[in-house]
Amino acid sequence: MNHIISIHDLNRNQIDRLLTRAGAIMAEYAGREPLKGKILGLLFFEPSTRTRMSFESAMLRLGGSCMNLGGVEVSSMAKGETLADTIRVVSGYADAIVLRHPKVGAARLASEFSDIPILNGGDGAGQHPSQTLIDLYTIRHSMPLDHIDVGLLGDLMYGRTTHSLAYALTHYHACIHTISPKGLGLPDSIRDNLCELGAEVIEHDSVEEIIKDLDVLYVTRLQRERFPDPAKFYDVSSSYRITPSLLADAKDHLAVLHPLPRVDEIDPAVDKLPCARYFQQARNGVPVRMAMLTEVMG
Amino acid sequence: MNHIISIHDLNRNQIDRLLTRAGAIMAEYAGREPLKGKILGLLFFEPSTRTRMSFESAMLRLGGSCMNLGGVEVSSMAKGETLADTIRVVSGYADAIVLRHPKVGAARLASEFSDIPILNGGDGAGQHPSQTLIDLYTIRHSMPLDHIDVGLLGDLMYGRTTHSLAYALTHYHACIHTISPKGLGLPDSIRDNLCELGAEVIEHDSVEEIIKDLDVLYVTRLQRERFPDPAKFYDVSSSYRITPSLLADAKDHLAVLHPLPRVDEIDPAVDKLPCARYFQQARNGVPVRMAMLTEVMG
Amino acid sequence: MNHIISIHDLNRNQIDRLLTRAGAIMAEYAGREPLKGKILGLLFFEPSTRTRMSFESAMLRLGGSCMNLGGVEVSSMAKGETLADTIRVVSGYADAIVLRHPKVGAARLASEFSDIPILNGGDGAGQHPSQTLIDLYTIRHSMPLDHIDVGLLGDLMYGRTTHSLAYALTHYHACIHTISPKGLGLPDSIRDNLCELGAEVIEHDSVEEIIKDLDVLYVTRLQRERFPDPAKFYDVSSSYRITPSLLADAKDHLAVLHPLPRVDEIDPAVDKLPCARYFQQARNGVPVRMAMLTEVMG
Repeated sequence: MNHIISIHDLNRNQIDRLLTRAGAIMAEYAGREPLKGKILGLLFFEPSTRTRMSFESAMLRLGGSCMNLGGVEVSSMAKGETLADTIRVVSGYADAIVLRHPKVGAARLASEFSDIPILNGGDGAGQHPSQTLIDLYTIRHSMPLDHIDVGLLGDLMYGRTTHSLAYALTHYHACIHTISPKGLGLPDSIRDNLCELGAEVIEHDSVEEIIKDLDVLYVTRLQRERFPDPAKFYDVSSSYRITPSLLADAKDHLAVLHPLPRVDEIDPAVDKLPCARYFQQARNGVPVRMAMLTEVMG
Repeated sequence: MNHIISIHDLNRNQIDRLLTRAGAIMAEYAGREPLKGKILGLLFFEPSTRTRMSFESAMLRLGGSCMNLGGVEVSSMAKGETLADTIRVVSGYADAIVLRHPKVGAARLASEFSDIPILNGGDGAGQHPSQTLIDLYTIRHSMPLDHIDVGLLGDLMYGRTTHSLAYALTHYHACIHTISPKGLGLPDSIRDNLCELGAEVIEHDSVEEIIKDLDVLYVTRLQRERFPDPAKFYDVSSSYRITPSLLADAKDHLAVLHPLPRVDEIDPAVDKLPCARYFQQARNGVPVRMAMLTEVMG
Repeated sequence: MNHIISIHDLNRNQIDRLLTRAGAIMAEYAGREPLKGKILGLLFFEPSTRTRMSFESAMLRLGGSCMNLGGVEVSSMAKGETLADTIRVVSGYADAIVLRHPKVGAARLASEFSDIPILNGGDGAGQHPSQTLIDLYTIRHSMPLDHIDVGLLGDLMYGRTTHSLAYALTHYHACIHTISPKGLGLPDSIRDNLCELGAEVIEHDSVEEIIKDLDVLYVTRLQRERFPDPAKFYDVSSSYRITPSLLADAKDHLAVLHPLPRVDEIDPAVDKLPCARYFQQARNGVPVRMAMLTEVMG
């Protein structure tokens, strides 16, 4: 494996291998430094805490070093340099690059100009494959991945994490339940695609209606800016808020996930329930990204 | 010792142990890497040069690695995440966290949500315990800490470093001399508190009046924004400026300290006098913070 | 050698020694860590990608660590601290400093207040010695440095890289050909100086006129802000654009260099021609800066 650009590039075997490696990696490399002497270049042209810091942590845990571009505003991109030129130059300084960029397709473009592996850290509304691997890894920790019922909640029109996760789950014959505000539903083209790939996709009007059947509930942030009317946003977001009472009828093994940051989508009272897996999910960023880094540089 | 949040949490024994360890640490760890494989997360939600860089230097000198959050503007805090959530996540990526935050109490709050040690790097007008340890360490290098006369000069109303230092000096039965512009004096509640803890606190109208009795003169920055009238600021700040002539009558072993950055409070002509200890004080940040890091992670 | 502030401080022997060391350094230090335990402080008060990241990469490749100031806006400079004070403090935290600063003479000033080596990473319109060493190193990789014909293209009035390169080439008896828009020609004082130092300097009206005689063509960016009239900028910049057809009559061994970032000065179709050396030039930043770092810290 060279670049990791899209979850679509990975077949089930490759996904399973990465997840298995992630599960063993902390023990496997304890006290060793398999990436000692290697440099990871972090090129983040958009805000990020979790993705950047967990890639950094993963690289450091493997004995390697990191180098940050330092924000577009202090870089030569501000002087009008193309992404292709930046990548060509930085690929002479580092051994792999994690790229986050506001434009869809940026990571693929970057991979065409790079001598070293490119790991897509999110390209606009496009792909974010390491997040999807973390989601799968977190689910697999609680239950086998095959034939599960997964609820996707929130903005399913623009949410890249839910799209990628849904695609990846087709490898495992999942039944996907969508719950989203009017106008923010799963695009028809994606739904059709998922069905062709073997998933079942069922639309619901509310979480209440389906909560007791779910194995996984994947919550995402509703973005205020999608709603022209602030009052409307308030109404909608409160009816998409996850609370302990909503979860009362859920299965015992239900896993509630969220890619974070959360704002009001999940009541903090949920944090202490056994179903709350979103902080563990964030932490799983380290072993999963360690697995990815050793895959491309090891 | 787990977290280091406030100088109030440390008793005299603990302070003395940290200062003694700081004194020996460069020799003790020369060529060794006691924190190899450990990661220090630096979460700075406010400007800092000295605090951040000297914590970084201390961690690197101990063989560890550092990871910066990268400024609130590029982080998920900008998306509305709570400090509690940020801490929960980052504590899965690092082995200790240094937090600087504009709100009083932020570090204490953070410690309640963290699995790993929190070191307070300054919380608004609240605490900044590593600075106080550096101040004590710098004084102790020149004289025994017990029963000294310490002048605190400048804005004593809002200055967190002077408050913390004064509290710490009560363990050593100091006599504290305050010199501050009208309206920026030591708050009564703090003065009463210091007296209850065994310090003597004496107010003065000018440095000239007390300079010859001081063992330590601790100078702080007057902030222009505290003065509604710019002309007033100019008048006041010039009469609080430390010059060689002012220091002519001082004791031979007087130590002039300043937490830096300075603007006009100390005439650059003072820099070459033997009493000028503020650059050494800044450099002492490294051994003192090395001692703190090994205390919580070693 | 202690500080590296200006290319003028280096004689031909010192330059040759650094270039020779750079050529051998990757092999010489493979698997070794000659700067293990050392810290490089990166103080960049101006935007930079290439200079900062290649210094970081060089330091990491030598087994050392790096520490970034983090931008003037988040530092104590914003509180009014002088550069002298910042340098005095940071020189207590690191083992060498790379400084980039908008003011001419900043690096020289810094060296007067620093206990540790200062490497000038560019001071305004002043010096940028590591760039010049990289330029020479890149040329030397293709041809002997003595008695070559070098074309300097673009804004030669303000371009610090072309000035420094021209001065360095006087050691090698180069013939320097200048091609620049009206009003942006080489300052007379610099031309006279170069001639006194033994260079030949010839002015040309267009690249076409001289291209077939050149061994090296050094292209620089025209800055829009130098032209009061945008239409004028467009006219001029298009007649200074390097294209494959312009290069058709060039010598086989012609090397086209550019300090990057480029915007429109070089047609991307040139990138694949054998004369295009600008990406290799950028990558040469790592070995050349490794040589500089071992020179001052090794």
